[in-house]
Amino acid sequence: MAENKPLILIVNDDGINARGVHYLADAVKEMGEVYIVAPDAAQSGQSSAMSMKSPLRITQYPERDGIKIYSVNGTPVDCVKLALHTIVPRRPDLLLSGINHGSNAGNNIIYSGTMGAVLETCMLGIPSIGYSYLSHSPEADFTNTLSYIQSITKEVIEKGLPEDICLNVNFPKGEIKGAKVVRAARGFWTEEYADYIDPQGKPFYMLTGNFKNAEPDAVDTDYYWLDRGYASIVPARPDQSALDIVAEFKTRFE
Amino acid sequence: MAENKPLILIVNDDGINARGVHYLADAVKEMGEVYIVAPDAAQSGQSSAMSMKSPLRITQYPERDGIKIYSVNGTPVDCVKLALHTIVPRRPDLLLSGINHGSNAGNNIIYSGTMGAVLETCMLGIPSIGYSYLSHSPEADFTNTLSYIQSITKEVIEKGLPEDICLNVNFPKGEIKGAKVVRAARGFWTEEYADYIDPQGKPFYMLTGNFKNAEPDAVDTDYYWLDRGYASIVPARPDQSALDIVAEFKTRFE
Repeated sequence: MAENKPLILIVNDDGINARGVHYLADAVKEMGEVYIVAPDAAQSGQSSAMSMKSPLRITQYPERDGIKIYSVNGTPVDCVKLALHTIVPRRPDLLLSGINHGSNAGNNIIYSGTMGAVLETCMLGIPSIGYSYLSHSPEADFTNTLSYIQSITKEVIEKGLPEDICLNVNFPKGEIKGAKVVRAARGFWTEEYADYIDPQGKPFYMLTGNFKNAEPDAVDTDYYWLDRGYASIVPARPDQSALDIVAEFKTRFE
Repeated sequence: MAENKPLILIVNDDGINARGVHYLADAVKEMGEVYIVAPDAAQSGQSSAMSMKSPLRITQYPERDGIKIYSVNGTPVDCVKLALHTIVPRRPDLLLSGINHGSNAGNNIIYSGTMGAVLETCMLGIPSIGYSYLSHSPEADFTNTLSYIQSITKEVIEKGLPEDICLNVNFPKGEIKGAKVVRAARGFWTEEYADYIDPQGKPFYMLTGNFKNAEPDAVDTDYYWLDRGYASIVPARPDQSALDIVAEFKTRFE
């Protein structure tokens, strides 16, 4: 009875043609009724962006091994919202996002379309997990992530997650020595643009850059353990309110 | 000596033609050397999205009352990053974003391009404030916000903000009875899409919806006080790591 199996909605930000989303669906297809609803094109760095004014359309693909497959001409958050509006037959029991081709560790969660989708369903009370792999290669070999993805996903299906808490899971390349629950490392980007001159002599700029971990020695952070061959699991909260600062600021700003 | 005045970078997400950004610049122009770097078109709901693959170009406009004015063909975060890369002559002392035409209260901060810009500079250690007004009208009358914007901005220029803390300030329409430092209310959106059929008989969808405050009676939240005619000031933190959950999850996931 498919109806008794958990409904698992899978999204990504690399788009419907990326290997990662299909690898993820295959990894969990025995655990539930799986729907892939992915952007029709790459949507990296789209954060929680939504298409405010453009018409969204859904494309359906042939089912594969019981996995239902759709794409949407929008962002990861568009995919989630439109999936809930009109694609899935009932409220999902679980949202998975990824496997992202590239890191979403450190404070880069803030730019991540992968995590944008995760935060979206987390705010609706749906247990939600983002999986990312520290290689941008379209041919990335996800084999070593399989047992981790399956055990983390199974644990969350069985026991859920606390209200307003989701998971940001990142995997190192190569052998994985274990998993560590940690916080996101702080960092920043340098040399963020390549400068060009167009054929008319006008300047233009394209995004690039290098991420610098600002706290490479902090043992309670994701990058510390990723650098040492461990998977990182960061429990994250959509709400960014700094509760510990409210009282102090009442004296300054009220 | 312009060099001795604080450099104030002003961004928004409604675009260079919106009234709010120019009102904000006028409100603070005596406090520093002001640069507006705004998107060339509306970028609402763009969160912390970045333009990953498209060339960014800068347009310069005539200076007005000492205010330097530029636009960028990208998102609010693109505006911030490119301003720092190539427009402003030194590191800004302050980032202001807005005045947004529309609310960024509650957990909608997550979708907000206004707050995307604020979080971006906050992560770089620059004191950063987002200002939003609870009306989407392009003709919104910001007069009642003026004294609040000036006093909050002045307080932050003089005393700064703690590391990794920024401000999300929202103003009600009409008379403002005072200001309250609070957390973001939780809520969710309903009826998020209008369904259409195109001339070829194919369905498409456009974003709409109603925000429902999930905790209308919580006196420590922004919407509670906005509903009662007060400005809300939410101290916010870019890092979404749920530090209080790490220990518990070590037993579940390591």
